[in-house]
Amino acid sequence: MAALPLTDHHCHGVVRRDLDAAGFAGLLTEGARGSWESRLGFAVRDHCAPLLDLPAHAPPADYLDRRASLGHAEVTARLLAAAGLGALCVDTGYLPEPLLTPQELGAAAGAAAHEVVRLEQLAEQLLTSGVDAMGFASGVRENLADRAEAAVAAKSVAAYRVGLGLNPRRPTDSEVTAAAGLTLATIGRGGPARIADETLHRFLVWTAVDLGLPVQFHTGFGDPDLNLHQANPTLLTPLLRAIEPTGVPVLLLHTYPYHREAGYLTQVFDNVYFDIGLAVHNVGSRATAVLAEALELAPFPKLLYASDAFGLPEHYYLAATLFREALSAFLDEFTESDATRIAHLIGVDNATRVYRL
Amino acid sequence: MAALPLTDHHCHGVVRRDLDAAGFAGLLTEGARGSWESRLGFAVRDHCAPLLDLPAHAPPADYLDRRASLGHAEVTARLLAAAGLGALCVDTGYLPEPLLTPQELGAAAGAAAHEVVRLEQLAEQLLTSGVDAMGFASGVRENLADRAEAAVAAKSVAAYRVGLGLNPRRPTDSEVTAAAGLTLATIGRGGPARIADETLHRFLVWTAVDLGLPVQFHTGFGDPDLNLHQANPTLLTPLLRAIEPTGVPVLLLHTYPYHREAGYLTQVFDNVYFDIGLAVHNVGSRATAVLAEALELAPFPKLLYASDAFGLPEHYYLAATLFREALSAFLDEFTESDATRIAHLIGVDNATRVYRL
Amino acid sequence: MAALPLTDHHCHGVVRRDLDAAGFAGLLTEGARGSWESRLGFAVRDHCAPLLDLPAHAPPADYLDRRASLGHAEVTARLLAAAGLGALCVDTGYLPEPLLTPQELGAAAGAAAHEVVRLEQLAEQLLTSGVDAMGFASGVRENLADRAEAAVAAKSVAAYRVGLGLNPRRPTDSEVTAAAGLTLATIGRGGPARIADETLHRFLVWTAVDLGLPVQFHTGFGDPDLNLHQANPTLLTPLLRAIEPTGVPVLLLHTYPYHREAGYLTQVFDNVYFDIGLAVHNVGSRATAVLAEALELAPFPKLLYASDAFGLPEHYYLAATLFREALSAFLDEFTESDATRIAHLIGVDNATRVYRL
Repeated sequence: MAALPLTDHHCHGVVRRDLDAAGFAGLLTEGARGSWESRLGFAVRDHCAPLLDLPAHAPPADYLDRRASLGHAEVTARLLAAAGLGALCVDTGYLPEPLLTPQELGAAAGAAAHEVVRLEQLAEQLLTSGVDAMGFASGVRENLADRAEAAVAAKSVAAYRVGLGLNPRRPTDSEVTAAAGLTLATIGRGGPARIADETLHRFLVWTAVDLGLPVQFHTGFGDPDLNLHQANPTLLTPLLRAIEPTGVPVLLLHTYPYHREAGYLTQVFDNVYFDIGLAVHNVGSRATAVLAEALELAPFPKLLYASDAFGLPEHYYLAATLFREALSAFLDEFTESDATRIAHLIGVDNATRVYRL
Repeated sequence: MAALPLTDHHCHGVVRRDLDAAGFAGLLTEGARGSWESRLGFAVRDHCAPLLDLPAHAPPADYLDRRASLGHAEVTARLLAAAGLGALCVDTGYLPEPLLTPQELGAAAGAAAHEVVRLEQLAEQLLTSGVDAMGFASGVRENLADRAEAAVAAKSVAAYRVGLGLNPRRPTDSEVTAAAGLTLATIGRGGPARIADETLHRFLVWTAVDLGLPVQFHTGFGDPDLNLHQANPTLLTPLLRAIEPTGVPVLLLHTYPYHREAGYLTQVFDNVYFDIGLAVHNVGSRATAVLAEALELAPFPKLLYASDAFGLPEHYYLAATLFREALSAFLDEFTESDATRIAHLIGVDNATRVYRL
Repeated sequence: MAALPLTDHHCHGVVRRDLDAAGFAGLLTEGARGSWESRLGFAVRDHCAPLLDLPAHAPPADYLDRRASLGHAEVTARLLAAAGLGALCVDTGYLPEPLLTPQELGAAAGAAAHEVVRLEQLAEQLLTSGVDAMGFASGVRENLADRAEAAVAAKSVAAYRVGLGLNPRRPTDSEVTAAAGLTLATIGRGGPARIADETLHRFLVWTAVDLGLPVQFHTGFGDPDLNLHQANPTLLTPLLRAIEPTGVPVLLLHTYPYHREAGYLTQVFDNVYFDIGLAVHNVGSRATAVLAEALELAPFPKLLYASDAFGLPEHYYLAATLFREALSAFLDEFTESDATRIAHLIGVDNATRVYRL
């Protein structure tokens, strides 16, 4: 298991600067201020401290001191190298500050690096580039086709903006034009260039599907601007049913605390996959329990590994370490040959197949 | 525990033909194609293979070969006999192909066989029998009263058609007539004879209640034509509250992943019962964990055993075997006399009491 | 752990009379009739029987006989003293019969006693005191300010009446006047003095927030007049987001089976806290599993101890005993100094800080 080079099919860049106590805590958990007094904080002290030459369970202050003295580049190098990754699919669509690029992450991890295009960011860039409403639909199609040359997947954050209860029907171009017109009018009145319109999110998803690009959906928990119950992946069911005949893979990200529901969706829809990223490192040693629940209904070819690491290289190392622990525990009851095959499916092969890596 | 003759209060027929690899997999899990690479697939290899004279963990290909050489009748006979069942309540309302009848299942299992009437099927048969809208309500009442002579319960699949958020009010005959008229008009235009109307589902349930017939509701996971969040049994709460004064038992089937919610409903409503059928064999060795959750709030006189077996005799054997394992683990912390009493309640007595078997 | 004097931040009075078998069972679990054949019934037999000088696992009849011969006052004295409580925050807003007062409970438990004001009860008392619609808003403000002198928190039962999907916006006085007018009109027509109006529930919450009074919300399971899915704490998200800048603490009570969702909310909102009261004693030995789930995402400074005991002193003793067991199991993997600190946070310090006890 330690030698299994995990494919992390959904992750983000890490910061390229040293962090003070508030800066580290703010990136650690999902709240604005973060907390060391959490499963995740304890997992850092247990698992990451030894990689920085500290004893396990080192206090937070010691950890931060040692981290500062090593410098962010060395800490990132140590933690990413130790994560044991074989490939990364990096969502480059959220950059509140400069982050390591996919190439830099891949170099640090010793892993192949791939890009995931965030659909809403692509559309928002187009909206501020001088496009008019009539040109929006074709502009999105062209831009996404261009990006799809180098990218392995598209990602939708509809869950954050309008919830996952999307109408399954592919919108017509005139519907898209009308919706784009409303958003452009908002921008014209000084509003943000922000996609938050059910028709537009749906249009973006269908555009990716039409290009044959696998679509990742944020589902389950995340930042405070989420209404969690609107991120329940079961709300996507009508859309999943509509996409299934195309054969284009749909990937339900994170899914916690709806990982059992997500597992069900992967059992009944041929082209639906999921992960428990973000949860894995947040729940610390409970990753074993969460993984076991996720795999109650899900066929083993349907689960992928993801960290959803963002900002801190600790997320990369912890997610990989805790996932390996959880997967080992899960496989305990299988024969050695079955366990080996399933570990490779979940850790590597499912992602390779879905994304044609 | 091995000697406890379980009453399976909700199950279906099994196919009366030999199955090729695709046919077996398609019946194994809920997706169209099915998967051996799942908890359920491994449970077949672990528990069923020895009954076909194979070693435990036999590969799928060996299992299918042996199954073919024994023939479906012998496989069904072995698996049903080994399930250790005392009584069956068979839902006869879904027959995509000819299946073993309740009598045939009972004979193979060495168990008493009872019938459960599917309400929507009864109504759909009536709609295609030349009834007009005015005659629909009384026709349903008469036909269900006839069927109730031999049947122990009625079953509603409202969860699949309109969701479980049913209005609790008993509809008036004129409302039923109007709704039936709309459905008949659809049929007249060449549409399917399919009940998918909130008023009609509700009318069917109340008709069963008025006859004193226990009502089974599909809740929780199932086929891909389900929107899972609309099958959450808590959506039934207003209707449960309205039915409670009649004393007619209501049975929440399957319930996973809402088994904790279902357990709560059985604690607060005197006449509400539940099971974890379908989940038991799907989740394999996790049945222990699921049962423990189901019984957190539920009083022990409120849980029944069900397999929800369909198509494959393997479902019958696995569900019974895994349920016995889970119930044994659950009862570990009780004294012997308490454990024995609770095992009989859950395995046999609750169903006997509810259905007056 | 046994010496940790728990602060029970949400509990109720216990009855001041001897109970027959039906009376005891009716108070034991949440249904009208109650059930000894449940995790909670077994927990009484296991844990409470020895405190009444009976062997563990004593049958219910023996337990009731012994309880009757000791008398309610002695039973209450023994169970409350043995609970090991340091402080109580007593919701005095539900009194279907005379119950021990906070002062009497505190004396029996050897604990400091504080009061929690139920917002809807305060408003309903005002509505029947001759107030007119125009005077309602200011009357509520004045009465709550008076009560806040002695009380440590306010409690909302919006979950029971209109569900937790409250509009986050603070209502205007004219909106409150209009809503109060409708409720007064209902009372004038002989209807109950019952707040069940989204605007009024929201107004009550904001009135408490404006006074700086921590607000407790019923969430999760409870009596049969609840629609459980409307008590999901994630429905409160927009309101939590609106209250966060005030810094006034919000406490999500009970939360089961939405304790993972509640844990998420406490991670992302600085001022949100939660407990697993009511569940702790209802689920018996499963409290360990439920606590572990609750603390997957929640920072440790965000969980409080609560029993939600009502009617029976057994609830007080069982909740405290089972919570200590669960917390001990949870802390097993931590170092001794970390475990001690976290136990004090969760058992005592978090409540002291939130309520400024």
